[in-house]
Amino acid sequence: MNEVMQQIKERKSVRVFKNKPIRNEIKKEIIGSAMEAPTAGAMMLYSILDIKDQELKDTLAVLCDNQPFIAKAPMVLIFLADYQRWYDAFCFEDCNPRKPGEGDALLACADAIIAAQNTVVAAQSYGIGSCYIGDILENCEAVRELLELPEYVIPAAMLVYGYPVESQLERKKPVRFEKEYIVFDNKYHRITKEDHEKMHRIRHEKAGLPDRNMNEYLKAFCNRKYMSDFSLEMNRSASEYLKNFKTNDKNDMNG
Amino acid sequence: MNEVMQQIKERKSVRVFKNKPIRNEIKKEIIGSAMEAPTAGAMMLYSILDIKDQELKDTLAVLCDNQPFIAKAPMVLIFLADYQRWYDAFCFEDCNPRKPGEGDALLACADAIIAAQNTVVAAQSYGIGSCYIGDILENCEAVRELLELPEYVIPAAMLVYGYPVESQLERKKPVRFEKEYIVFDNKYHRITKEDHEKMHRIRHEKAGLPDRNMNEYLKAFCNRKYMSDFSLEMNRSASEYLKNFKTNDKNDMNG
Repeated sequence: MNEVMQQIKERKSVRVFKNKPIRNEIKKEIIGSAMEAPTAGAMMLYSILDIKDQELKDTLAVLCDNQPFIAKAPMVLIFLADYQRWYDAFCFEDCNPRKPGEGDALLACADAIIAAQNTVVAAQSYGIGSCYIGDILENCEAVRELLELPEYVIPAAMLVYGYPVESQLERKKPVRFEKEYIVFDNKYHRITKEDHEKMHRIRHEKAGLPDRNMNEYLKAFCNRKYMSDFSLEMNRSASEYLKNFKTNDKNDMNG
Repeated sequence: MNEVMQQIKERKSVRVFKNKPIRNEIKKEIIGSAMEAPTAGAMMLYSILDIKDQELKDTLAVLCDNQPFIAKAPMVLIFLADYQRWYDAFCFEDCNPRKPGEGDALLACADAIIAAQNTVVAAQSYGIGSCYIGDILENCEAVRELLELPEYVIPAAMLVYGYPVESQLERKKPVRFEKEYIVFDNKYHRITKEDHEKMHRIRHEKAGLPDRNMNEYLKAFCNRKYMSDFSLEMNRSASEYLKNFKTNDKNDMNG
């Protein structure tokens, strides 16, 4: 196995960081890795916010489901799906553009996340841990105001970075589901109730929890995660962001 | 600069492949890199379709804006944002779940793209080139039928992989915009008309096209890309996919 593959396999989320800053040269390399990432039509449909201000970190930690470790991270980047830059350019140059639609939104989100994942890999190559904060999608109105986001910008992901403390290095990486339930030949395969139970059972066995009651586990998980306030809020907020990206009638080229 | 950073910087899209298959052990490693990627709450909100069938590749090449090189790629993977698997599990176990909303859709798209980008990095480490095909978002109805996609699944990205022919290795990587127009401290910075022109001018100079007329260039680009049939189709199709992910009223917990 080559060095890159080794690092990809070992990489796990890090949420507790040493009190050690990330040197500027390394930070520059990590951000540079985002800018070298694949991007649709070389458009770079993203912007990156480098959150340096401590007060802003503190506020974001609260807005992102009250997770204080965010405020303690030595480096915090927000990856914005950004169609504003191109839409503005088209307007400035009298191109008479349509307004961005849902496809544009998803393409920009993909561009932003591709760039974000390159920084995760790059950071790891310097021994720097990272953690995705999906909660940046919550609280649309407050986040928009705080970060001064215009109409055609969606915060696709936030990432926090830092040198892991020893206990984080020792933490076991969460076990993945078996490949047979995730990767399919040619067509989608919708798995059965029995498959689901087996899929979870194998994972729990591998995690050292062979006796877990599957029904109790899934009910608790559903309540704690999927039906939680933060999950409902994320859906409400994402819906607000997407309201600006509405595909018009095909014949209405001027939006 | 370490080896990982070097590879990230050198990586560019590859669209013409040698007539050389990817060995199964390497393919397994590349797919494995996706499964090791960061994932929200360890939920793995994606599925991967390994398109082995040549007829299916041929059809996808047509459905994805008629790009024959897709059909010639030795390896084709589709990364599906997949909330169906978890929603089904919650239903099977009588968790009385709400229906997935826009936030769930964006989170699953992020999970799928994070996994996809890991395979790009992994492939590169084996000397294998790749190219994202965003067009898989087009033609919702036909793609759904072809790949048997259920309600809560969105094709977030397709990737084609193969060993690059010499000419592809020699091709210059498209120049990126300068960092000052992409990375901002703390808050979003909306750039001016003058900034836009400078941003594009610098890129064109670096690409060896210093005399390009910016207004003509942007008008032609807007027409060829943003106002194109494939772009309108992508927006229509994405809008269709997202129709299934509608956030209900907060008080309606049963969807």
